[in-house]
Amino acid sequence: MIIKTPTKFFLVNGSSEGFSLLNAFDGALLASGVGDTNLVKMSSILPPSCEEIKPPPVPMPQGALVPTAYASLCSDVPGEVISAAVAIGISNDANRAGLIMEYSAKAEEKVVVDQVKKMVEKGMEMRNRGIKEIMAISATYKVVTIGAVFAAVVLWD
Amino acid sequence: MIIKTPTKFFLVNGSSEGFSLLNAFDGALLASGVGDTNLVKMSSILPPSCEEIKPPPVPMPQGALVPTAYASLCSDVPGEVISAAVAIGISNDANRAGLIMEYSAKAEEKVVVDQVKKMVEKGMEMRNRGIKEIMAISATYKVVTIGAVFAAVVLWD
Amino acid sequence: MIIKTPTKFFLVNGSSEGFSLLNAFDGALLASGVGDTNLVKMSSILPPSCEEIKPPPVPMPQGALVPTAYASLCSDVPGEVISAAVAIGISNDANRAGLIMEYSAKAEEKVVVDQVKKMVEKGMEMRNRGIKEIMAISATYKVVTIGAVFAAVVLWD
Repeated sequence: MIIKTPTKFFLVNGSSEGFSLLNAFDGALLASGVGDTNLVKMSSILPPSCEEIKPPPVPMPQGALVPTAYASLCSDVPGEVISAAVAIGISNDANRAGLIMEYSAKAEEKVVVDQVKKMVEKGMEMRNRGIKEIMAISATYKVVTIGAVFAAVVLWD
Repeated sequence: MIIKTPTKFFLVNGSSEGFSLLNAFDGALLASGVGDTNLVKMSSILPPSCEEIKPPPVPMPQGALVPTAYASLCSDVPGEVISAAVAIGISNDANRAGLIMEYSAKAEEKVVVDQVKKMVEKGMEMRNRGIKEIMAISATYKVVTIGAVFAAVVLWD
Repeated sequence: MIIKTPTKFFLVNGSSEGFSLLNAFDGALLASGVGDTNLVKMSSILPPSCEEIKPPPVPMPQGALVPTAYASLCSDVPGEVISAAVAIGISNDANRAGLIMEYSAKAEEKVVVDQVKKMVEKGMEMRNRGIKEIMAISATYKVVTIGAVFAAVVLWD
């Protein structure tokens, strides 16, 4: 393997106003406690036996390269409600991977959370894999001028 | 170097229906044999002397972080034909890198494959580098409700 | 940590015409000296005490996986002016991370550079972190048929 497989994970969320769309995203990362790391986006599997760290190591080592599955949304429409959520389906077989799904929309938080959980259920069905537990985390924000939401599963070792 | 340079590669493809756009994408990854790994998208070079693995190690180690150059397309337009393809131009000088190109479109498979091969030819021309061989893989799908196609060069070690 | 934290960085820029949007992007990478590497995009922090390499190691080792924060823009509108820029805010405290921002637009280079520097200032303000220096690099291009611009902070070790 080229990159070490993660053995730990944690969930974070945040939202922020910002000077630009990217500054708002950056602010949402800061609010999540991962704002001084380098997120590397990946498609979305929880390795078997990956353990939750609680509380998460926030702040993280500065500048670390961190594989992360995340949902985010930025908006510059004042008054708009934006929400982002991630969910993990933990396999009931400890030797099988879990599935992470991400969803974001210009919608209320509950809508987005319900959708991302259904996405996990359907994805685990597709694998014929039983679900022990679904974990989820979400963020919602009503934009003042420019805003962003962020929800993530951060993989760690 | 921060991350080890890959020494092996393989080609995969797949398509799927799904509950959401992301579920369809996930299904296409499963159909490709890489659905339980964490793909890390990268811009698109085949390291010199990188060797093809045949058959590919499917299924892959669950949850592994896997650098991958891929083309994909999702659609929720019933009846729409979607296609994705990747091609590799292998250098005729074993000490020089090969070039990977990705292309996807709402088009027939042949159109997409022809285009991605031309893209490889032009990219190798730009490098003044001769082509020993062009390898390509593609996927095509006619959407029922929500569908996705995926074609990839997976780097490995 | 799963991936080693980078200790060096350098700035590059480039622009190019191309056969397709992706070929133009590839050409801009080649013009930047990183065209034969595998860029892995990341969110945008300069690790504390990360040192600039001058001149950059161009060409880079072929096929290497390289974490990079970049701005780019492609266009197939003849005559259009496109610009991309990245800036780094170096912390005045050597133990704190710097912030990288990326911006691109269909606009003159000066507009894009001014904006990306402001984004860095605002992001460092949000961290209550003083700025020792802002470094920036940019690319601009007037499209003939299909063109691309690219500006990047490449992390290295």
